[in-house]
Amino acid sequence: MSIVAVGSVAFDSVATPSGRVQDILGGSATYFALAASYFTEVRVVAVVGEDFTGAHESVFKKRKIDTRGIERAKGKTFRWGGQYLENLNEAKTDFTDLNVFERFRPRIPTEYMDSKFLFLGNIQPSLQAEVCRKMNKVQLTGGDTMNFWINGAREELLQTLKLMDVLLINDNEAKMLAGEGNLPRAAQKVLAMGPKALVIKHGEYGATIFFREGAFGIGRHPFRAPTLPIEEVKDPTGAGDSFAGGFMGYIASQETLNREVLKRALFYGGVMGSFAVERFGTEWLQDLSREEIDARFQVFRELTHLE
Amino acid sequence: MSIVAVGSVAFDSVATPSGRVQDILGGSATYFALAASYFTEVRVVAVVGEDFTGAHESVFKKRKIDTRGIERAKGKTFRWGGQYLENLNEAKTDFTDLNVFERFRPRIPTEYMDSKFLFLGNIQPSLQAEVCRKMNKVQLTGGDTMNFWINGAREELLQTLKLMDVLLINDNEAKMLAGEGNLPRAAQKVLAMGPKALVIKHGEYGATIFFREGAFGIGRHPFRAPTLPIEEVKDPTGAGDSFAGGFMGYIASQETLNREVLKRALFYGGVMGSFAVERFGTEWLQDLSREEIDARFQVFRELTHLE
Repeated sequence: MSIVAVGSVAFDSVATPSGRVQDILGGSATYFALAASYFTEVRVVAVVGEDFTGAHESVFKKRKIDTRGIERAKGKTFRWGGQYLENLNEAKTDFTDLNVFERFRPRIPTEYMDSKFLFLGNIQPSLQAEVCRKMNKVQLTGGDTMNFWINGAREELLQTLKLMDVLLINDNEAKMLAGEGNLPRAAQKVLAMGPKALVIKHGEYGATIFFREGAFGIGRHPFRAPTLPIEEVKDPTGAGDSFAGGFMGYIASQETLNREVLKRALFYGGVMGSFAVERFGTEWLQDLSREEIDARFQVFRELTHLE
Repeated sequence: MSIVAVGSVAFDSVATPSGRVQDILGGSATYFALAASYFTEVRVVAVVGEDFTGAHESVFKKRKIDTRGIERAKGKTFRWGGQYLENLNEAKTDFTDLNVFERFRPRIPTEYMDSKFLFLGNIQPSLQAEVCRKMNKVQLTGGDTMNFWINGAREELLQTLKLMDVLLINDNEAKMLAGEGNLPRAAQKVLAMGPKALVIKHGEYGATIFFREGAFGIGRHPFRAPTLPIEEVKDPTGAGDSFAGGFMGYIASQETLNREVLKRALFYGGVMGSFAVERFGTEWLQDLSREEIDARFQVFRELTHLE
């Protein structure tokens, strides 16, 4: 079933120990949509500037992603520059030119309104909430946020969390949001804020999904998916959104929604994140096959599977 | 089959956010032996001082651990004091009084010489090598080391690594030993130094075992075991040695030695490490049942198991 992705489309300039790229297509909605497109129909809501060309749009089109929700505004597309030279887990931002993204106000095309799944990329929490309220046929909403909103728009964010079914954040964000340094305790506190499930991404150590009691089935334990140890992480940009794309895309492709589906989705999230980081930008995400994805899913499975 | 554990017996004084204890029984050989004792017969080689009492010895005896290799020397037992107040992953050492441990020279009782498994706790690499060379009936040797030797006795350590079948270290130690910041690349470099398998412990994220090509079976991928997210880590002291005890103890209890056994052993390592940290010192390791251990093994399994 189709999934709507709301977020940014950007041009990124990135330097890592493996090399350097300039003004390549990126942004949370882009990474998410490409990753999810291998599982289900994806519809994007974002804003771009006049420098967004047909060649850029064809990246979406080739993956049959619906771009009717990509608004063209006067001015330049959002640009971000950063480097991961000393630590591949954390970007050092060189510049952030919001450009047309500064006044982004998500407009959902009428044709998108029947979508059953929604992903809210990392944008201002009040805008995330606005989209949630509009899209009233949605069965499951997943969302992301970041330190900037956790610290700077906490009240808004707490309201928005009540509208999200699954929140996907990393270790530090979970600890900061909960005000708690112990991860499983932080997870319990975040679940008490609203989401039925919380996915905490551990970078090279995989991800854990924590469930609110009774949500999506029974059982008191969380579930953990590994990641493939990768010998050369070329570009970590977009790993989290690609993870979310694999996770939500797999969920949207399933007939039922239960813990077993969410567990498999956690593995698919890791799989798509691992493809993303092995090449610069969205390069590999543009050019995968479902067979390659499922083969890597099997590798991930074997990584932790006991006979 | 029986396993010989060479290492320290110590009295630890520890402060953590959960409390504070003084002069409690600890040391690498103690944690290892207690954890391994639930799987197989364990024989300890260590040195203690005149302050090591019958009550201390009874901790070993109750678990049927052979203490004939615990040498009594004139003077005091090794004492260590440390705190984990800001970071549960790393101890801040308050004091290290080596006492009788300073002149520790492992003496293997004749009765131990038929042992098929050997664990070398974190002692001077040249002493580890000496034990390896003496115990020529051993089928599998596991060992630990630390930053102190990696930096300060590198040549000795490199010689010793050629005698170890499985090295168990943490992320930072692996990176430091290899001189390589990427973990899977570091693992390959360490395997090239001698060990057939390398266990890298990731603390709260579990552990990964990397295999030298062709060792213990076939397959090019590593294997990862999770840990249970623990809401209150009372005392991290001894987690690594308890992990090693569960890992080596399980291996020694099996009839055959192949990758599947090593994978299960990695889970049992995590299980014993998780028990260790949930109470102060060796408290819980003294008082478990195999049923509790196997129940937790099942929980660990379900943590990553897809239907």
